[in-house]
Amino acid sequence: MSSQQVILINCPDEKGLVYKVSEVLFKSNLNIVTNAEIVDHSTKSFFMRTAFTGDCDSKSLVDSLKKALPSAAEVNFCKADKKKLLLFATKETHCLGDILLRCQTGELKAEILGVLSQYDDLKNLVEQFQVPFHFVPVENDNRESHEKKLHDLCNKYQADYIVLAKYMRILSSDFIKPFQHRIINIHHSFLPAFIGANPYKQAFERGVKIIGATAHYVTEDLDEGPIIAQAVTPVNQGHDHFQMAREGKEIERAVLARALNLVLNDQVILHGHRTIVFE
Amino acid sequence: MSSQQVILINCPDEKGLVYKVSEVLFKSNLNIVTNAEIVDHSTKSFFMRTAFTGDCDSKSLVDSLKKALPSAAEVNFCKADKKKLLLFATKETHCLGDILLRCQTGELKAEILGVLSQYDDLKNLVEQFQVPFHFVPVENDNRESHEKKLHDLCNKYQADYIVLAKYMRILSSDFIKPFQHRIINIHHSFLPAFIGANPYKQAFERGVKIIGATAHYVTEDLDEGPIIAQAVTPVNQGHDHFQMAREGKEIERAVLARALNLVLNDQVILHGHRTIVFE
Amino acid sequence: MSSQQVILINCPDEKGLVYKVSEVLFKSNLNIVTNAEIVDHSTKSFFMRTAFTGDCDSKSLVDSLKKALPSAAEVNFCKADKKKLLLFATKETHCLGDILLRCQTGELKAEILGVLSQYDDLKNLVEQFQVPFHFVPVENDNRESHEKKLHDLCNKYQADYIVLAKYMRILSSDFIKPFQHRIINIHHSFLPAFIGANPYKQAFERGVKIIGATAHYVTEDLDEGPIIAQAVTPVNQGHDHFQMAREGKEIERAVLARALNLVLNDQVILHGHRTIVFE
Amino acid sequence: MSSQQVILINCPDEKGLVYKVSEVLFKSNLNIVTNAEIVDHSTKSFFMRTAFTGDCDSKSLVDSLKKALPSAAEVNFCKADKKKLLLFATKETHCLGDILLRCQTGELKAEILGVLSQYDDLKNLVEQFQVPFHFVPVENDNRESHEKKLHDLCNKYQADYIVLAKYMRILSSDFIKPFQHRIINIHHSFLPAFIGANPYKQAFERGVKIIGATAHYVTEDLDEGPIIAQAVTPVNQGHDHFQMAREGKEIERAVLARALNLVLNDQVILHGHRTIVFE
Repeated sequence: MSSQQVILINCPDEKGLVYKVSEVLFKSNLNIVTNAEIVDHSTKSFFMRTAFTGDCDSKSLVDSLKKALPSAAEVNFCKADKKKLLLFATKETHCLGDILLRCQTGELKAEILGVLSQYDDLKNLVEQFQVPFHFVPVENDNRESHEKKLHDLCNKYQADYIVLAKYMRILSSDFIKPFQHRIINIHHSFLPAFIGANPYKQAFERGVKIIGATAHYVTEDLDEGPIIAQAVTPVNQGHDHFQMAREGKEIERAVLARALNLVLNDQVILHGHRTIVFE
Repeated sequence: MSSQQVILINCPDEKGLVYKVSEVLFKSNLNIVTNAEIVDHSTKSFFMRTAFTGDCDSKSLVDSLKKALPSAAEVNFCKADKKKLLLFATKETHCLGDILLRCQTGELKAEILGVLSQYDDLKNLVEQFQVPFHFVPVENDNRESHEKKLHDLCNKYQADYIVLAKYMRILSSDFIKPFQHRIINIHHSFLPAFIGANPYKQAFERGVKIIGATAHYVTEDLDEGPIIAQAVTPVNQGHDHFQMAREGKEIERAVLARALNLVLNDQVILHGHRTIVFE
Repeated sequence: MSSQQVILINCPDEKGLVYKVSEVLFKSNLNIVTNAEIVDHSTKSFFMRTAFTGDCDSKSLVDSLKKALPSAAEVNFCKADKKKLLLFATKETHCLGDILLRCQTGELKAEILGVLSQYDDLKNLVEQFQVPFHFVPVENDNRESHEKKLHDLCNKYQADYIVLAKYMRILSSDFIKPFQHRIINIHHSFLPAFIGANPYKQAFERGVKIIGATAHYVTEDLDEGPIIAQAVTPVNQGHDHFQMAREGKEIERAVLARALNLVLNDQVILHGHRTIVFE
Repeated sequence: MSSQQVILINCPDEKGLVYKVSEVLFKSNLNIVTNAEIVDHSTKSFFMRTAFTGDCDSKSLVDSLKKALPSAAEVNFCKADKKKLLLFATKETHCLGDILLRCQTGELKAEILGVLSQYDDLKNLVEQFQVPFHFVPVENDNRESHEKKLHDLCNKYQADYIVLAKYMRILSSDFIKPFQHRIINIHHSFLPAFIGANPYKQAFERGVKIIGATAHYVTEDLDEGPIIAQAVTPVNQGHDHFQMAREGKEIERAVLARALNLVLNDQVILHGHRTIVFE
């Protein structure tokens, strides 16, 4: 599986696109493993993901596809290499520990370059996985200077994605802008959504019967970026808001792992405010 | 099962409540079928549901329980009789048809007294189940006069509950007030919730991965009443917003049937903005 | 949606199949609505479903596709017409009533030609939907003669599919053979599966935490035919085996409706002991 | 939460049991946090779980309860202490790593005394969590002698529970007997269940739409012990049997964590072939 290469296509829909793409792939003599198209009829958009094995020159393959497709087409060639992650965390272990473990055992196809936190509580957990831990305190620092330090570390590491593994601090849009669509966040989120502090307490007081979580790309509009994965779990009356928070953590860790797996395997195309996910 | 009587208790929590209630029930020589207590530690509230068989004088049983419990206790004795429903509908068949069928076959323990609608599209479907259909048009009528007609029919029928089975018209708070907590609504509702027209189109455009529905009591604040039941279903990329709406209908019919079953079996206690559900 | 035509293809996998199929469709100037391929690498099989609108001569389209594909390819052209169903039932209303209702309201795209039963309990329910009811008693009859009567009715009606909507009598393989893969059954089925009488009682005694149901094509090996749809629901300790049976009925009706919808919309390809479902 | 003590009661049902138990607890002046009873009407059995805080002499509380209850009653007092686990593993990391992580971060309320394996592949992973790893090879050893070594380690460690975290070797009933109901296993398990080697391949070939997993106590009849927790996940056509196995691992890790949490919090009563779970 790990030597599969992936082509992701995003283009305005028109007749014959599958024909044109499959003609290029067929004539390039590639061995197609999976192939899927999605047409969004409301915006007349066409999306395609092809996973294949076999030798090819990525540049000339992309060129051939672009030539065959409408000029507005985006064609991405995704190499089979492990992607590189930088993790931001605060004090909670459930998402961070799970990602560290899954990357170490190979369940997530990624290398973790480092972990950044504004507290040092998680240092031992991180170093136990032979991953560098960077303590970047906010105390006695201002936002601008603090984000400058984070930014410098991000630039140093050159990660493919920054993962906010329960990073409980809001990042400025200045920080986000250069990494737009390369930051992934996990958000507790309910039915209906509760905003502000202590969402599980609010959910409990409203008597919701289901709680959930959402993993999404971060845009400058923090919790409004394109959704990658969501899941929910039923809660019952026996649950007080502490137990709800506990169940919420289970869902958060599961949804974040699922979203990362999709992103790391090149199964996600960004399309405006939405993602198109090939499952 | 159908001859079970139910006691619902809602009272401030204190030590020994289970002891006191169970003493009264034991000494009344009743045959307890199921017994459940829920304590809400955040508001220090105690809820109990006991289903039992056996002869008893309901008034004296309630009196004995009230005497044993703190003075603020609410004690409801729920008879084993079928409850009576009045349904409001518009043009959609999925919830209405399902309730008509389930009441006829006995899957829902209720009698439907009649169906009211501002259109006559559903007349044949309703009458096929030997249920009276009332066409109350809004054309050439004003809101006040229209609601007066609905109100008169409600008064005539004396239903235990009014069920809004996809009734797509907003009821005024004047209409709702006398039936507060006796009106049950089904609301499409998402993660996050979408407000306004065409919620499935909004959900599609936001790229949600899960859609859901909520059944709730109606309060003067229309979609904000206490939640009785909720459920969700995953949606994928192949879904356009028409297919989402189709999946949404499946969830709506299932959640409304589930909520009605809970209410009809006296498994729900109202507690402020919340419900306590005994499952 | 209702005027969509569908092509289903089942053929040995080889390079270039998508290219070849899409070339034929593109050159036939058809308007593709959805297109999906599935490759089963373990048996090297290729499956494709294309839904399209537009004028075409079905015979010449199928011929063109067969010419383009390997000689072993099966190509099915599915017309946009409503399919015709014959239902077999016994005494239970939950699946039968749900199908009658959904076909009447148009939620299932099918016409019900008639209902057959070895009891007359369901006569009123069926006739209320203006559907003919045939009472074919088994008392004072032998199996061979009874099945002959069923067979004659099936031949008279010429249905596309026979649906066993909780038909609690085993059909002989002689009866099944001529209708192989055109009979659809709903089977209670657990984790692990319980065989024999009173499965919910067995499930309760084993303490299962989840119950489910399976809709499948009937082959001569009754409960072993290709699976079309499955679903499960959690059960808790409060459930006795009567409540489990009640929850089981909910799952059975939902799974059967889902399976019928897939079959009626030509989303299922039979492939040996399996189905390939395009969702 | 961590200082809660729990009483578990299992006794033949009769009138007044809740009254009798609640009288003892009330008069002992304990602070009840949650209280739940389950009656199994089919076997006329009564189960109760009470979690409470407050000072009490465990022996005299149990004596008072036994005196108040029928003579066949089993009354278990569960201390608030962390339970001790011994883990058996083979080569797979998904369940083992998850338990190691959750015990370290406190998400599971247990201490891991050690890990035993017939291979040494997992040594580094285990030692990274500061947990002793015991490599007990089977090569050049016979079953009896190998199990003797395992048995000696179990006796040395005196764990409360042995957890088979994907231990792919069958244990003899001689080994199991002394630890009966103190060994917990995770079993891939489907709908229907597939027995023997490569269950995910069998499931794929049968075209199942759902896969699952079951955590259970081990009895001498290996995969037939009382079920603690089960869960399932849908699979689609895109899944080959490798992807099914991958999804299966996700379910296995989640179900085992859930089951351990229930056992460690004294939420499970064993009752013949079943468990009664208080959720």
